[in-house]
Amino acid sequence: MILVSGRNDVMNGRNKYLCRSETIGHMNKLITEGIGTFFLLLAILLSTGPLAALAIGLMLMALMYSGMRLSGSHYNPAVSLALLLQGRLHRDEFPGYIFAQLCGATLAAIMGGFLLTFTTNAEVVVRTNHTLGVLTGEFLGTFAFIYVYLHVILPEKTRGNAYYGLAIGLTLTALMSIFTEVSGAVFNPAVALGLAISGKLAWSDLWMYFITNLLGAAVAGTVFSLVNDEK
Amino acid sequence: MILVSGRNDVMNGRNKYLCRSETIGHMNKLITEGIGTFFLLLAILLSTGPLAALAIGLMLMALMYSGMRLSGSHYNPAVSLALLLQGRLHRDEFPGYIFAQLCGATLAAIMGGFLLTFTTNAEVVVRTNHTLGVLTGEFLGTFAFIYVYLHVILPEKTRGNAYYGLAIGLTLTALMSIFTEVSGAVFNPAVALGLAISGKLAWSDLWMYFITNLLGAAVAGTVFSLVNDEK
Amino acid sequence: MILVSGRNDVMNGRNKYLCRSETIGHMNKLITEGIGTFFLLLAILLSTGPLAALAIGLMLMALMYSGMRLSGSHYNPAVSLALLLQGRLHRDEFPGYIFAQLCGATLAAIMGGFLLTFTTNAEVVVRTNHTLGVLTGEFLGTFAFIYVYLHVILPEKTRGNAYYGLAIGLTLTALMSIFTEVSGAVFNPAVALGLAISGKLAWSDLWMYFITNLLGAAVAGTVFSLVNDEK
Amino acid sequence: MILVSGRNDVMNGRNKYLCRSETIGHMNKLITEGIGTFFLLLAILLSTGPLAALAIGLMLMALMYSGMRLSGSHYNPAVSLALLLQGRLHRDEFPGYIFAQLCGATLAAIMGGFLLTFTTNAEVVVRTNHTLGVLTGEFLGTFAFIYVYLHVILPEKTRGNAYYGLAIGLTLTALMSIFTEVSGAVFNPAVALGLAISGKLAWSDLWMYFITNLLGAAVAGTVFSLVNDEK
Repeated sequence: MILVSGRNDVMNGRNKYLCRSETIGHMNKLITEGIGTFFLLLAILLSTGPLAALAIGLMLMALMYSGMRLSGSHYNPAVSLALLLQGRLHRDEFPGYIFAQLCGATLAAIMGGFLLTFTTNAEVVVRTNHTLGVLTGEFLGTFAFIYVYLHVILPEKTRGNAYYGLAIGLTLTALMSIFTEVSGAVFNPAVALGLAISGKLAWSDLWMYFITNLLGAAVAGTVFSLVNDEK
Repeated sequence: MILVSGRNDVMNGRNKYLCRSETIGHMNKLITEGIGTFFLLLAILLSTGPLAALAIGLMLMALMYSGMRLSGSHYNPAVSLALLLQGRLHRDEFPGYIFAQLCGATLAAIMGGFLLTFTTNAEVVVRTNHTLGVLTGEFLGTFAFIYVYLHVILPEKTRGNAYYGLAIGLTLTALMSIFTEVSGAVFNPAVALGLAISGKLAWSDLWMYFITNLLGAAVAGTVFSLVNDEK
Repeated sequence: MILVSGRNDVMNGRNKYLCRSETIGHMNKLITEGIGTFFLLLAILLSTGPLAALAIGLMLMALMYSGMRLSGSHYNPAVSLALLLQGRLHRDEFPGYIFAQLCGATLAAIMGGFLLTFTTNAEVVVRTNHTLGVLTGEFLGTFAFIYVYLHVILPEKTRGNAYYGLAIGLTLTALMSIFTEVSGAVFNPAVALGLAISGKLAWSDLWMYFITNLLGAAVAGTVFSLVNDEK
Repeated sequence: MILVSGRNDVMNGRNKYLCRSETIGHMNKLITEGIGTFFLLLAILLSTGPLAALAIGLMLMALMYSGMRLSGSHYNPAVSLALLLQGRLHRDEFPGYIFAQLCGATLAAIMGGFLLTFTTNAEVVVRTNHTLGVLTGEFLGTFAFIYVYLHVILPEKTRGNAYYGLAIGLTLTALMSIFTEVSGAVFNPAVALGLAISGKLAWSDLWMYFITNLLGAAVAGTVFSLVNDEK
């Protein structure tokens, strides 16, 4: 399935970067990344009950579909790193993306703390997982998340497909169901920071998430480059 | 599978209004809006159990896909306002849309009250939330809902996409999971009116929903205009 | 969104019937209808737990996508009636469709009874609902189901869309969440027959489902013809 | 949005094999199959709670969309057998696919055992089902799964569709909801092997799953060939 270039919502044919400054203003991308990361973390902080993992995945799905044509819908420094390593995000844009994501997460942590005061079941899930479980679970989960992201977004053959947001958003639901007890199911350094600000994650555990999420992204990118048949 | 450009199910290229009177009769649009708002509120009033928020989002998804080519699938005065402000709904049509939506909600409130007499677990969830929580939650939730709606429906680049109903409908599921305890998760003045008629919402609280929903729509429209790169 | 005729999965341009005998053998359609109705009722009889309504909707979604290009994926005499009245199912084919659907449901009732002996929680939900609730709920639910079916399948403008199975299948999930307590949430005479054979529905109540399901289909078809702008 | 025919993400017109060695390296396919089967079984072993069946189906959906253009996204020896019998997988590739799937499942069983030590609710669901229930349930379930797989992947008319991963992945969710109590809901010899390695399935019961899964695949392929109108 191929979309004729210039009319597709992911990128155009002559431009290897997902979103280039020339076509979309850099600030517009940062606003999109910031808003997306804000609502993603808000969903993580406030969703409760049996549907929580599904609601978070659906929020990410909607944000994926909303921002793809503008910023590429990263909302996650690990995704930005993977795309940087693939040569699909320009290194000049990388710091801005990370900054916007961390800002969005910080604001969501503050807003989430405020909103939680209006809820009765303030189930403060302090995640105190075993170090080895966190390292393994976060590595595997981020690997799977980035593996799916790269495979449904980057290949030329399936560019402009309609299912990317569904696949990526609901991969998060599946991975939260698998890894929540093992590692806390973060897979996203910006979310990890926001959870630490919100007091849901110990500051002293933050390094484990940062390292494994970025490592998972790098390894997923390497495997993608290995199996992808288009180079 | 070949899609011919310029003949998509959202709008055609020479016509900036989502649905123009010349091509589709005004009355057909109002019937579509009325039926859609009716079943949306019926789902909100009668769905119970752990899947309730999902069922409501799925009902909206189906109604989105059913009515888009006729009325634009608003089912929500806040959506109609946002499209009016974007210049995508003609001001002559705006009052009819609002009237149809309020009629649908009123009929659904009456029918819902009747149907609830046949159910055993008539869990009358009178929503008595904190004013500050309602104002913040409804503003943020309506902002997110309209932000997703505008981004997946309006941009030229992704016009005629297949995922719009999925993204918009299930954003409601995600937002209900996030904001139900904070604000009641209404995000829709017609639904607020219907809930008041059904006795699920105090009449004296109605202004909070009206103001924040319409304000959220206006701000989401402004942000959309700001980041959208097509003007 | 328009698919060039001759390459789409719903029907081709010169042929107003969804599936004509000349292109697809009549027996193939009946086998498809029988298998689909069989697995739909099996899902209804055996799914338990909080995800039951979702699982049933997902089964219908998958069967919709599987059979559309062959039989039109009715799996429901009310759908067949609505398409007959729209002139989209030939009257010579109508009896075969009904026969295949009733056969599939009968076999599923027998197989379901056999399989239920291997389950521990044989929660025999004998549906004893109030007559007025059944009549109202089944009418409204079948109306909504057929309304969505016709709007996402028939219009020329959105022919060949990718979302039809998602919209129709998960409308059933939403409607089961809304109407299960009110009317039993059947919306399908073949399912009603299968439930009666399985002892989940009183034989003396069967007429209520038959009448309201077929009436709901007829009214939904009338409303569709009224608002559809393509005639 | 314009799709150019002949360049779809499933296969191209002049090539009856879903993935040919000439276009995609054999090793890339095996890596894709191994990674996919690994994460599918990991989801089965670690997902708990009311959303478990949904999370597993969503994981499969994401893996379907990720691997289709490379390996055809089998992740299941029963699927590979069905495609071999349809002449859509070359017999030289068949052993490699089975080997990769069994390797992925074995590694997932080992990793799953390790990860389960970090979870508190190690609900070891030893599946001790009645032989007749297993034989019937696994046959019917695998039949339905392969029936959906073949119908949404193979037909020329709907080639390159966007919904295949959704339909196939969430069919597994529906079938798990239907058959878990009857037969354990495996439908996949590689998963059966992994469950045996993990101690969730008795080694002496393994033959029942192998035979019925492969038989279900063969019968589904026969029915598909019978009703498919394109030969």
